[in-house]
Amino acid sequence: MTAASPSRLSINQETIKQWSLEELAEGCTSAGISRVGLWRSPVQEYGVERAAKLMRDAGLSVTSLCRGGFLTATDPELRTAALDDNRLAIDEAATLGTDTLVLVSGGLPPGARDLAAARERIADALAILAPYAFACGVRLAIEPLHPMFASDRCVVSTLGQALDLAERFPASHVGVVVDTYHVWWDDQAPAQIARAGATGRIHSFQVADWITPLPAGVLLGRGKLGDGSIDLRAFRSMVDATGFTGPIEVEIFNESLWARPGPEVLTEIVERYRQHVLE
Amino acid sequence: MTAASPSRLSINQETIKQWSLEELAEGCTSAGISRVGLWRSPVQEYGVERAAKLMRDAGLSVTSLCRGGFLTATDPELRTAALDDNRLAIDEAATLGTDTLVLVSGGLPPGARDLAAARERIADALAILAPYAFACGVRLAIEPLHPMFASDRCVVSTLGQALDLAERFPASHVGVVVDTYHVWWDDQAPAQIARAGATGRIHSFQVADWITPLPAGVLLGRGKLGDGSIDLRAFRSMVDATGFTGPIEVEIFNESLWARPGPEVLTEIVERYRQHVLE
Repeated sequence: MTAASPSRLSINQETIKQWSLEELAEGCTSAGISRVGLWRSPVQEYGVERAAKLMRDAGLSVTSLCRGGFLTATDPELRTAALDDNRLAIDEAATLGTDTLVLVSGGLPPGARDLAAARERIADALAILAPYAFACGVRLAIEPLHPMFASDRCVVSTLGQALDLAERFPASHVGVVVDTYHVWWDDQAPAQIARAGATGRIHSFQVADWITPLPAGVLLGRGKLGDGSIDLRAFRSMVDATGFTGPIEVEIFNESLWARPGPEVLTEIVERYRQHVLE
Repeated sequence: MTAASPSRLSINQETIKQWSLEELAEGCTSAGISRVGLWRSPVQEYGVERAAKLMRDAGLSVTSLCRGGFLTATDPELRTAALDDNRLAIDEAATLGTDTLVLVSGGLPPGARDLAAARERIADALAILAPYAFACGVRLAIEPLHPMFASDRCVVSTLGQALDLAERFPASHVGVVVDTYHVWWDDQAPAQIARAGATGRIHSFQVADWITPLPAGVLLGRGKLGDGSIDLRAFRSMVDATGFTGPIEVEIFNESLWARPGPEVLTEIVERYRQHVLE
């Protein structure tokens, strides 16, 4: 790490998706970045053990693995498959040496309209998965997704809902992800961040900015830090005020970033992180 | 009204936007519908007095006028213009004989990131506008818009936030709109509907369904009743349980509806309303 590097910054690999895992390791190391967040699919393609060694050899620590979850199916076969896949994700997280598996809980099954019942099925699944994860040294981090994803990706839409689920379990087993993109609009977010911090349940802190117009499908509409409506510094301060000293992960899904050379994107991320997230 | 007509159903004119005001009056009357929700722009084009007479002569009551609001500007000139425009909207509502002006509060001004301050500016504007509206026999109905509109259209994202604003004023001056499309994802919505009903602040109840994928810009992505994820009947029951007996307004912005013959669309709306909203 260079003297000038922001020590808490973690680069979520989806932000510079054009990079292979090897390019990510090389690029981050060259830039003095010592933390990365990884995704299952590229890690599986590269080989989990091999990816773990690559990161270790580069001196990179893995701050989170994205993602487990999708725990809302009613069909017994789908449900069993989801639980099996989450156990595998937990194993992968342990192999990578990260203590945090991010969960995107899942949307409504086809034809379903009962959000409360879907949220209960998540709780039921957590009761099965959390002890397994704990035994593997991995914490499950429930990520509330913006309410625009409530039907198709994640019925957990607010930090309050995520904490209502997490608090049924020990903080060492289940916590939450605070992602500015998903919670910025919520006037309850400051109180819920305090609640999460007070019980040691902020297992991951991610930053991205909110910009409009949203693209079709809305998934790839995240803004670069500083381009949008979110007071990122205020959120960082709120999270810090709880005593959280963990990584700050930049996770931006934006096709314009993927179209540029990785090193250039990384340099810009570091600059914007300093300018808009740090003081 | 025919014996079979659902008496509380109101057709928001944007749902069948391809109809002129005269076609709307004719079409609704023929179908035994006695209530409509109107929008300012087509009413202004037709002439406000003239539109009022058209509706009166057709025996139609106007359940709401959409929309005032956009009260978040910081620039003094823009702010004065917004207040003037809202006074005009109140006058138009009074002329049309509706007691309800729907307010879409406004998003963040360019470059702004302070949602709380924007919400305070709405409260300041309501303090000016609400007495004027009351004197004209018009209630202001704050519509919380889905959080995906928080930056560019409406910083009021939940019923809870809308009620926090409304309750600073008498219920006869300021209330809220319950629109299923905007609040369906919120686990606090049932409690907030009860809160709104208990103080007589449900000034409008609107229904549309939630479907995905969302189109670019997300404005025209509303689903036909029954096509999506919202338990519309449950919401109607919750609203009714507060003692609300007012109109149920169908407001769907969907280009596929606008591309079809109006009478056919209206017939389908009535059928789906019976099937998915009523018992």
